[in-house]
Amino acid sequence: MLGSTHGTLTTDSRRARIIACGEQRPGAAVHGRAADTDDLDVSGRPLYTDVPDLDRFFRPRSVAVVGASDTEGRPNTGITRQLLSWAERVGARVHPVHPTRPAVFGLPCAASVADLPEPVDLAVLLVADPLPLVAELAEAKVRFAVAFASGFAETGAAGAAAQAELAAAVRESGLRLLGPNTNLNAFERFRNDLQGPAIALITQSGHQGRPVFALQELGVRLSHWAPTGNEADLETADFISYFAERPEVGAIACYLEGLKDGRSFLLAADRAARRRVPVVAVKVGRTEAGARTAASHTGKLTGADDVIDAAMRQYGVIRVDGLDELQDTAALLARAQAPRADGVVVYSISGGTGAHVADLAAGAGLRLPELSADRQAELHRWIPEYLSVANPVDNGGHPVGDERGRKIIDALLADPEVGVLICPITGPFPPLSDRLVRDLVAAAETTDKLVCVVWGSPVGTEPAYREVLLGSSRVATFRTVGNCLTAVRAYLDHHRFVHTYRSPFDEAPRSPSPSFRKARALLRPGQQLSEHAAKQLLRAYGIRVPREQLVTSAAGAVRAAAQVGYPVVMKASGARIAHKTELGLVRIGLTSASQVRDAYRELTDTARYEGVSLDGVLVCQMVERGVEMVVGVTHDDLFGPTVTVGLGGVLVEVLRDAAVRVPPFGEEQARDMLGELRGRALLDGVRGRPPADLDALVEVVLRVQRMALELGGELAELDINPLMVLPQGQGAVALDALAVCR
Amino acid sequence: MLGSTHGTLTTDSRRARIIACGEQRPGAAVHGRAADTDDLDVSGRPLYTDVPDLDRFFRPRSVAVVGASDTEGRPNTGITRQLLSWAERVGARVHPVHPTRPAVFGLPCAASVADLPEPVDLAVLLVADPLPLVAELAEAKVRFAVAFASGFAETGAAGAAAQAELAAAVRESGLRLLGPNTNLNAFERFRNDLQGPAIALITQSGHQGRPVFALQELGVRLSHWAPTGNEADLETADFISYFAERPEVGAIACYLEGLKDGRSFLLAADRAARRRVPVVAVKVGRTEAGARTAASHTGKLTGADDVIDAAMRQYGVIRVDGLDELQDTAALLARAQAPRADGVVVYSISGGTGAHVADLAAGAGLRLPELSADRQAELHRWIPEYLSVANPVDNGGHPVGDERGRKIIDALLADPEVGVLICPITGPFPPLSDRLVRDLVAAAETTDKLVCVVWGSPVGTEPAYREVLLGSSRVATFRTVGNCLTAVRAYLDHHRFVHTYRSPFDEAPRSPSPSFRKARALLRPGQQLSEHAAKQLLRAYGIRVPREQLVTSAAGAVRAAAQVGYPVVMKASGARIAHKTELGLVRIGLTSASQVRDAYRELTDTARYEGVSLDGVLVCQMVERGVEMVVGVTHDDLFGPTVTVGLGGVLVEVLRDAAVRVPPFGEEQARDMLGELRGRALLDGVRGRPPADLDALVEVVLRVQRMALELGGELAELDINPLMVLPQGQGAVALDALAVCR
Repeated sequence: MLGSTHGTLTTDSRRARIIACGEQRPGAAVHGRAADTDDLDVSGRPLYTDVPDLDRFFRPRSVAVVGASDTEGRPNTGITRQLLSWAERVGARVHPVHPTRPAVFGLPCAASVADLPEPVDLAVLLVADPLPLVAELAEAKVRFAVAFASGFAETGAAGAAAQAELAAAVRESGLRLLGPNTNLNAFERFRNDLQGPAIALITQSGHQGRPVFALQELGVRLSHWAPTGNEADLETADFISYFAERPEVGAIACYLEGLKDGRSFLLAADRAARRRVPVVAVKVGRTEAGARTAASHTGKLTGADDVIDAAMRQYGVIRVDGLDELQDTAALLARAQAPRADGVVVYSISGGTGAHVADLAAGAGLRLPELSADRQAELHRWIPEYLSVANPVDNGGHPVGDERGRKIIDALLADPEVGVLICPITGPFPPLSDRLVRDLVAAAETTDKLVCVVWGSPVGTEPAYREVLLGSSRVATFRTVGNCLTAVRAYLDHHRFVHTYRSPFDEAPRSPSPSFRKARALLRPGQQLSEHAAKQLLRAYGIRVPREQLVTSAAGAVRAAAQVGYPVVMKASGARIAHKTELGLVRIGLTSASQVRDAYRELTDTARYEGVSLDGVLVCQMVERGVEMVVGVTHDDLFGPTVTVGLGGVLVEVLRDAAVRVPPFGEEQARDMLGELRGRALLDGVRGRPPADLDALVEVVLRVQRMALELGGELAELDINPLMVLPQGQGAVALDALAVCR
Repeated sequence: MLGSTHGTLTTDSRRARIIACGEQRPGAAVHGRAADTDDLDVSGRPLYTDVPDLDRFFRPRSVAVVGASDTEGRPNTGITRQLLSWAERVGARVHPVHPTRPAVFGLPCAASVADLPEPVDLAVLLVADPLPLVAELAEAKVRFAVAFASGFAETGAAGAAAQAELAAAVRESGLRLLGPNTNLNAFERFRNDLQGPAIALITQSGHQGRPVFALQELGVRLSHWAPTGNEADLETADFISYFAERPEVGAIACYLEGLKDGRSFLLAADRAARRRVPVVAVKVGRTEAGARTAASHTGKLTGADDVIDAAMRQYGVIRVDGLDELQDTAALLARAQAPRADGVVVYSISGGTGAHVADLAAGAGLRLPELSADRQAELHRWIPEYLSVANPVDNGGHPVGDERGRKIIDALLADPEVGVLICPITGPFPPLSDRLVRDLVAAAETTDKLVCVVWGSPVGTEPAYREVLLGSSRVATFRTVGNCLTAVRAYLDHHRFVHTYRSPFDEAPRSPSPSFRKARALLRPGQQLSEHAAKQLLRAYGIRVPREQLVTSAAGAVRAAAQVGYPVVMKASGARIAHKTELGLVRIGLTSASQVRDAYRELTDTARYEGVSLDGVLVCQMVERGVEMVVGVTHDDLFGPTVTVGLGGVLVEVLRDAAVRVPPFGEEQARDMLGELRGRALLDGVRGRPPADLDALVEVVLRVQRMALELGGELAELDINPLMVLPQGQGAVALDALAVCR
């Protein structure tokens, strides 16, 4: 039996360790990373990262501006001016640094970093090459630096080398660096008059963060903006971790083009999931073209899109496509409290609007419970009998014009089935819609349930929208039904997710299983294993394979068949045979010694004809009447080995009906993979066939995951195809396997 | 052989016949419909409808207001006031009608319609029951009436009966009626200062049209609004046909909950496609829940959603989900000229924005050609060398601030590969974005290529947006990238579609094929045919079936097998057997007389055991090595018989991988059906299998369509499952068939 996949549990308090930056560092070589082998999983990847303490990055008490200028027309002058104005607002001290200027904008200038009058929290580097400054900054006990310079990894190989050199110097120094190729977005003019939970923003392209930043003009609070640039040192993951620990952050919004490291991203997402802080992300790279452009833009790894998509879902990261969805979803998730129920009620002044929005809502996977007879009777005290109030609730218009309007809203919000009220206001008609909006805003103040309004007018200058709706931080206001439904769906999904979330890192294996040593002895570096050897690899991990024998003579085949039991399958076996069936190197359903003898001769003849060298012929037990699946391991640039499960046979080739997960993951995720398959019903039994043994299939997926973790570095490829999943209670058998060693 | 499916060609001029309403009517019984049997297809459905002349409905010279009021607080008073104000604006004469009032708002009141001082173009009926007025209105030569009253089909069976009575009376009368259950949206305050092609709007819920109407405030011209209500007489199709003939209409926007009649909708969509007028529609009913709510709202048929979706695609109707998409897509399609190329260039001031939008654009199916080396060299005269200008084109920001900005735009628009320029402006930065916007607007004036701007700021009060972009009718302005891409895709698709559109009605069969008489003799009303009889039905239509014989003895079976040729398949045959395989009533791969004899005994024994009555046993030629497909006919509430093709076997059950079309359709559509199948690659040959005989498959689909048209009224269900499609050049064979007669 395979050893338990559950490793040592780490306490949560351990995980909340926040590491001060630029002061005592636990060890330069592992900075920002786990220090102990204790903190590595069996694949050698970290199970833990510290949270960098970025308080003094975002709120420095003192700032050095290296390369400061007040000469009109120079780019550095504008940046210096922006920093001075920012510093004045937040009460930070600014120290210009310039080798020749005595003063900048009236402030005395230090000739070099070494001459700074105090140890500063942050140095802004407005120089073409930040590398020579690194040691000097560390010496001067500067904690953080921001490097504006471009020309690094975003420009190609030479730039990437320069960036690696910079990164190494920074790692040595104890300094934490943002950039290069970044900007001053972190020190923009944030509104400080807005209350409530805020959005923290991370962008890999400053321009793409603008609309999220502009949400402040619509009353949505923004607490931080981290423009990570090329991420030579500080990376997206560091900011996610840090923001997840900040009490004022309600949601983290990200615009991502690539990731510096897959595992650090997952660990940060894990922290956010534990802390129940939603992360909403645009990730470029849905298409090949997009991935290529993004890679050339920031020089980061983009990874395979289906893999990053799966990884995000594993950790509850909400992926959206457009910046408008990023804004609307992050704003909702930042501000809304946990739902009291997952039922959605659609309330409108028009039956048409209600029908349309209910249709779209159901299509978006929201649950619109039919209101109880009692509730409907109550609503009909204010809404004419002939209108439907089952959900959607159509009030016919008039009731919103008087005191009935508020009573209806209160009754809907009082319903225990209702967690979310969506009120689409398709066209403003001030006599009705102004009062409706006021009632919704007032009612939202009295409840912790979510009240959403869709202001459907394309104009958007109406006072009911600009003043009343945007003036409320309790009502979530949208401009399109689509974005409202996307956000509400994300909101309900997020809370469902975090409610049952268990970190896979707590349970990830840290040491090799007993299977590992056996399996390792079977590997042949650089070679493709024979089918027989690949199956032995599977057996080592407790995955069932058919009874089979490798024989080298017709007589041996007949003996083997008798022992294996008729009917048998015979296959040519050799180190480099793929597509055996297509080459005619498989015979199935052999029921007698004479058939076995003939088959042996035919197979060896065919192999000779095809020029395939054999190590023998496999005589295998014939396994029928199951569902053919494929389970495999592939390698992703960003995340390393990943596990795939799909429907077998021609289906996986034609429909690519497969689900992927990034290890480590638990049994629940393995079950979820099956739920993602379009052909899932095949496993449940169709046309009177019995349901397949799902438990056995899940167990195989988990064992393959263990192989991926333990052998991932040595196995370039592993594919079980087909895995025959037998009827419930009967297990699953790997009928064929392909294993390629590195 | 089957007769040609091509009927008599009708000239296009014939189709443009516009029928004056309320004057000489060609025959009351067929009003608004084809009069001659000449104009019916072989299924008895019309191949043609006249276009009602609605000029005097939308621009009446004189209007009677029946039930006019000026008593404060009465609903009719508000309506009367609105009509008076509208009439004053457009110069129409208003005649109030009321049995007791001498005057309304100072205008002399007629006591009844009969007392009107002139024959009026339009009567607005503000009465609870319009039925008693119909004859009177016709007598008074009133051309059009609008009935506000509710309580008809939208309320259930009794209301539906009342509506049927009203419809019948209207049909008799020669009057054309809008409503009941409608409103005055047609007589709103339209802006008349806007130029260029307009949107004409059709809504089945007035409130849902508000945002499209409001587009006028953003500078988009609206020419008409038809709120069709319950469509007792005038229906959506009438307005589509009419608008398609109006020169000022650039696009037709529809909000639909259901349709009165499937064929009339298709004929109207066909007219629009011939006229190259785009129709953009929201159609509620994506989900069961939505369809139910919509049905209860207007009492119309909603039809199966996949069928209406297919029908819309067949005629190039662009279906969208949200009202925001309806607005943005209709506005673009109304105003943009035909594209000169289908290439899209994305141009932005930020590499991040370019990468993101290019990714989404490629995901939306748009083609982003890489710009030529020459073009790139030209762009690099103004854009720094290190920025990518291949497409997306990243200018790095600065060039837009001076004269380079306009030069770049002009160079992009001059590229012959580029038909559409998309410029996403993610955040306003007035020093750059104001000039960028001005340059885009100016450049758009000089080209007939499409210039799209996405104004990504969520604020929307910026002057560059409000004044400059919305002030231009040449630039298509969007608020989200998603809506821009949806609209651009629809624009390119629409023009591609109409460019090659051939009306299927011109080629639809009008008279039965020679097959029809043979086939009809095989039908058994109310019964399910035996497999053998169903296959004979197929043979009558020239669809190949295996060699087979129906036998009633073991000896007969052996004789039949010898004639059919070994190996054979044997199946129990009877009138009411479904799921033969599951019941054990099929034996395959029988290779000898003794196997055939045994199989005969086993099949008859099993049938006896299962209590199935047989008319014999089928001995069939065994056909292997093809792709199993399903081709069938089902009945849709809205459109009648439809034709489905899908992947056979377990795939069709589990994945429902099928495509549907509404007859009549041509060969091209039949081929398109195959392209819609997710498992399409199976037909092209996978794992070294030969490609399947697509021509034969398409021919079977067309023959089944012919069966659907000719026998649709008598066949409740027809399913060929499986149709074995053999390798290219070898045809397709219907291995089993199910036919149920009405």
